[in-house]
Amino acid sequence: MKRTNSGINAGRGERALLVEIRKRAARSSGGGLRLGIGDDCALLAPRRGEEVAVTTDLSIAGRHFRLDWHPPEAVGHRALARGLSDLAAMGARPVAAFLSLGLPRELTIASGRRRSWVQRFLDGLLALAETHHTPLAGGDLAESPIVVADIVLVGAVPQGHALLRSGARPGDLLYVTGALGGAAAGLARLAELAQAQPDAPNPPFIPKKLKALLAPHLYPQPRIRQGLWLQRHGMASAALDLSDGLSTDLAHLCEESGVAAEVDAALLPIHAAATLAQALHGGEDYELLFTAPVSARLPRSIAGVPVTRIGRILKARPRQPNLTLLTPQGPQLLEPHGWEHFC
Amino acid sequence: MKRTNSGINAGRGERALLVEIRKRAARSSGGGLRLGIGDDCALLAPRRGEEVAVTTDLSIAGRHFRLDWHPPEAVGHRALARGLSDLAAMGARPVAAFLSLGLPRELTIASGRRRSWVQRFLDGLLALAETHHTPLAGGDLAESPIVVADIVLVGAVPQGHALLRSGARPGDLLYVTGALGGAAAGLARLAELAQAQPDAPNPPFIPKKLKALLAPHLYPQPRIRQGLWLQRHGMASAALDLSDGLSTDLAHLCEESGVAAEVDAALLPIHAAATLAQALHGGEDYELLFTAPVSARLPRSIAGVPVTRIGRILKARPRQPNLTLLTPQGPQLLEPHGWEHFC
Repeated sequence: MKRTNSGINAGRGERALLVEIRKRAARSSGGGLRLGIGDDCALLAPRRGEEVAVTTDLSIAGRHFRLDWHPPEAVGHRALARGLSDLAAMGARPVAAFLSLGLPRELTIASGRRRSWVQRFLDGLLALAETHHTPLAGGDLAESPIVVADIVLVGAVPQGHALLRSGARPGDLLYVTGALGGAAAGLARLAELAQAQPDAPNPPFIPKKLKALLAPHLYPQPRIRQGLWLQRHGMASAALDLSDGLSTDLAHLCEESGVAAEVDAALLPIHAAATLAQALHGGEDYELLFTAPVSARLPRSIAGVPVTRIGRILKARPRQPNLTLLTPQGPQLLEPHGWEHFC
Repeated sequence: MKRTNSGINAGRGERALLVEIRKRAARSSGGGLRLGIGDDCALLAPRRGEEVAVTTDLSIAGRHFRLDWHPPEAVGHRALARGLSDLAAMGARPVAAFLSLGLPRELTIASGRRRSWVQRFLDGLLALAETHHTPLAGGDLAESPIVVADIVLVGAVPQGHALLRSGARPGDLLYVTGALGGAAAGLARLAELAQAQPDAPNPPFIPKKLKALLAPHLYPQPRIRQGLWLQRHGMASAALDLSDGLSTDLAHLCEESGVAAEVDAALLPIHAAATLAQALHGGEDYELLFTAPVSARLPRSIAGVPVTRIGRILKARPRQPNLTLLTPQGPQLLEPHGWEHFC
């Protein structure tokens, strides 16, 4: 964790923040971290025979979250969850996280007993890091007119055993973990709440009875254990995580594997609060979408999270749509509809 | 390289940019990259007995560069140079780079034969990546009201052989590569040029005769080969790169090593265009500052770059200043003065 050079004399707030991050990060632990915050680079030691998986995810205020909608803890949690979910999709174990954070100075200021925005952001981020034994090993810090947080996750996976997007074959069955559409439904409810309590720039008060409903959006759970299970059992022929929405992510999987797919609407594990459209196109559920040969004997759940067969992989045909949705009214074209959140 | 979910339907410009980056990145090559852009993570394979070095550097418009001062190629070059320089300071060989880029849509638009801002940014970044055999292995892309570029560098170094900040011992001699203050002098000249040619939002035209003078600022050369040489020969007891300025970075080295230091002003390799103050406090020279025992026989240059002894490491004493500058007028306190660029 550095303070970038232009900000070096930028004041005590930044220096104090750096010291706080360093202190809090030092408490987090993880097997592969040899050297954390304080030098030019962090040093990680993968085990013999392991490859290193790296992913970066950029979160920008007004684009991936809103200061007047999202509690700071949720912004921190979500930023890290996106990166962890990418590791889960490869079947990798997390080794370390890095945070490059740009933010306006006023968000670093605590007043009296009220913690600053950035302290609460770190609360959310570090709590999730702790859950997944992922030390915060470094990053960068700068003043910025808007909040930007780039999260880097480094993981490790036995050589040649990573779950790729490109391994799906015609005949494979298509599976998903957990429930779909919960994040989109939660976001819709959050938007209503924010509009009913216009107290900008602060996020709305969330009544206790709504917390469970908003959780899939505010505090999505990356499926690290499920990804590791699939990788260790060699069960999945291809996998990715549902960040853009089922229809869009399935299109990515088909494109990278050179196949087509059909999804049976009747089989979809739709979240209790969600619509079919939210389950098909709503992003940010961070469940795993994966394929496995017919011969693979998948359990009904992995580490407490249900696994549901939702369709199958077909041969790609020239000039034919890649994605089909089976409905009671017959097969339909399933068009990738990414989810546009705030713009 | 992903397009973050909120931007998924954001338009053809973004999709086209993603395709272009993927195509151009595929041309870059490097030994340790197993799987580049296109999956949830990139996969890297360090060699047996190697540790993995990771660093992130955030560049924000108006803070680390200015759109009305810096040519886009220089912004791309400088962003990558900062990360490569961190690897150099550890004695690590570069394995892969990642770019998380947020930018306003208008900067992705080419008009007629004029390349877009982001194309020229990539020209600068990828040219330097090529020089150091560093493939662009992934990243993230999002629309943003301001330009933010987070660069992640992953390198590899034999276990236990990384050059750390913490290894300096009293009696060690203090060395620096190259010349000091050139970047600060170049920046001062660039600022004059921009004020004399107020053609905002575009950077000023740079006359041919000024190019060499501005080069240390616009196109700094990370000392990868010099860092590798020091690591392989086991010569340096501690090292870091000069990003914040000699006085500030030397204070970091002393703090991490628990030592004090004295610098002899008469020995400093001051850049021909720079003042003593620029050499002492000017940031972004990206030279290596390192220490070595008196017994180490250092060459006068490494891979064509001069190596100069500038002082020595002393025992830290309680309530005594850590840094001393020897001048013809006698010893002075050397206070860390970071360089504030644009704010």
